[in-house]
Amino acid sequence: MADSIEGGLIALDAMGGDFAPKEIVLGAKKALADYSIRSLLVGDKTKISEFNDVSLPVYHASEVISMDDDPAKSVRNKKDSSLSRCADLVSQGKCTATISAGNTGAAMAAALFKIGRIKGVSRPAIATTIPMVGHHPTVMLDSGANAECQSDWLVQFAQMGAVYSSIRYNIEKPKVALLSIGEESTKGSPLIKETHKKLVDLSSNSFEFIGNVEGRDLLEAVADVVVTDGFTGNVALKTLEGSLKFFMKMLLGVMNTNDETKKAQDVLLNYLLPIAEELDPETTGGAMLLGIDGISIISHGSSSAKAISNALRVSDELVKANIVEHLKKAVEQN
Amino acid sequence: MADSIEGGLIALDAMGGDFAPKEIVLGAKKALADYSIRSLLVGDKTKISEFNDVSLPVYHASEVISMDDDPAKSVRNKKDSSLSRCADLVSQGKCTATISAGNTGAAMAAALFKIGRIKGVSRPAIATTIPMVGHHPTVMLDSGANAECQSDWLVQFAQMGAVYSSIRYNIEKPKVALLSIGEESTKGSPLIKETHKKLVDLSSNSFEFIGNVEGRDLLEAVADVVVTDGFTGNVALKTLEGSLKFFMKMLLGVMNTNDETKKAQDVLLNYLLPIAEELDPETTGGAMLLGIDGISIISHGSSSAKAISNALRVSDELVKANIVEHLKKAVEQN
Repeated sequence: MADSIEGGLIALDAMGGDFAPKEIVLGAKKALADYSIRSLLVGDKTKISEFNDVSLPVYHASEVISMDDDPAKSVRNKKDSSLSRCADLVSQGKCTATISAGNTGAAMAAALFKIGRIKGVSRPAIATTIPMVGHHPTVMLDSGANAECQSDWLVQFAQMGAVYSSIRYNIEKPKVALLSIGEESTKGSPLIKETHKKLVDLSSNSFEFIGNVEGRDLLEAVADVVVTDGFTGNVALKTLEGSLKFFMKMLLGVMNTNDETKKAQDVLLNYLLPIAEELDPETTGGAMLLGIDGISIISHGSSSAKAISNALRVSDELVKANIVEHLKKAVEQN
Repeated sequence: MADSIEGGLIALDAMGGDFAPKEIVLGAKKALADYSIRSLLVGDKTKISEFNDVSLPVYHASEVISMDDDPAKSVRNKKDSSLSRCADLVSQGKCTATISAGNTGAAMAAALFKIGRIKGVSRPAIATTIPMVGHHPTVMLDSGANAECQSDWLVQFAQMGAVYSSIRYNIEKPKVALLSIGEESTKGSPLIKETHKKLVDLSSNSFEFIGNVEGRDLLEAVADVVVTDGFTGNVALKTLEGSLKFFMKMLLGVMNTNDETKKAQDVLLNYLLPIAEELDPETTGGAMLLGIDGISIISHGSSSAKAISNALRVSDELVKANIVEHLKKAVEQN
């Protein structure tokens, strides 16, 4: 079956995510309509066919890795799972990129086991984009792949994050910062102090190291790239997510108190909705696994068709920009 | 001079903070007027006298530790600084508690060097209270004293945080959670997994361990106490601070767009202001250093008279509740 695949397609895990396969297939249809991007739908062909009325190509996979499955074990044992098959297709050069909204750990494991690391990369990292209002997003990495890190890994995250920011947002020399608990180079954990020193000494031509930033700077667009270990990065991102959600809920609650507040809501929503649109994680197009020898994108578990369509758009851009070659050069320079 | 001090006073660092001595002295006056709490104003007697028209007692100190001073060095070298003298007064039993809005690291160092640790406590932690809407605050510790932690320290943070939450918010058996990057016990760094196991095994009568929480739960009032290392805690708190500030600024900007939105603002502010008041860090009364053999409260650098008055109110409650004795019992149980 694999032999008959047309070239240049993005492998899309049609079975991964809370609203799979429906929203995933609808996302693929949307990307085809909006951006003329063709994807290969990987998963249960019967279930996919229910929504695939545009005859996007399908690659049948009989198994599904669930959100609760153990990442490494499930990739090893469920060889015919949609998520594993997506990684296989990239590894075999049959697809240009893979996208999954399924089990993040399993997507990471599949990318590592099947596609492999870029030579010289110690640990791949998850690069998430934090949306900003009126400014391009900030790339934060690692946002959860490596709960414990070493300073050399963080230096590579800086190099790879700079390439990613540069390509995605067309920035000549991205500003790279280190997430810490004080701006001074003497503040932070031993890991942060050591990394700070190494980044100062590195004096790269491809990015500018601007020192430490704090949690309160994350929405201030002070840096293009924020480097952190996967534990801190994940906590910070989820804290951001949680507080924006809290605030939106609180505000909507207040605006729905009575007729008078509902009138106020009608006025304000005209101005608030465009901002909410800018901050919507669904528009950012997923998180890339940087350091993998191929393009692997992780989309949020709750991805809608819109999120999947945006992930396809971003993947297509990254394929065309040859991002993996740029990443290879960036880590070679050490 | 010290011999003439009346008993039962709280030592207040009148020179610490961005708006010292004015806001500090005004805060002391407010606490006297609102709660009949008398404090001892520690600092430059001439500068203090400018605002002290109610004849609150003054303890002269000739030096000031600035925000940029090295914490340990400044406490060692500036022996007659207001911040150091406050700790001296508690250590000598002449005051019941100390409050400073100055250099946090120096306040920590002064408390450690002069007042000392509770016997058996490995490391004191900064316990910050995260305000909630319609619910008592969540106590988060450590929020910045110890950038690197060991699992035994985190277990003590849980024990001490439970005592603090129990006394401050009158909770019989506080719910204690561990901040991690997934709810499952298998998620997180080695430190978190190890601590999780120890907290499960501890089965304390004085608190209930409810497992891991994530960054997105911090404003959801799921736990009374959230335990974390000082690096992660500090990043999470500042991320919360930053995102709430961002959202308020964005909302105020939108509401000030034109006459129509300003009218909407007039309607909504009646409902938003009480919520903003609940979320205002100035009302929470500062952060306590848990594990010190005395009461030492750190107030935000930007503290206004209101924040200082609330810190005095909370300190007074903690003195009356004999919190240090309760903390001693909690860590003895191991």
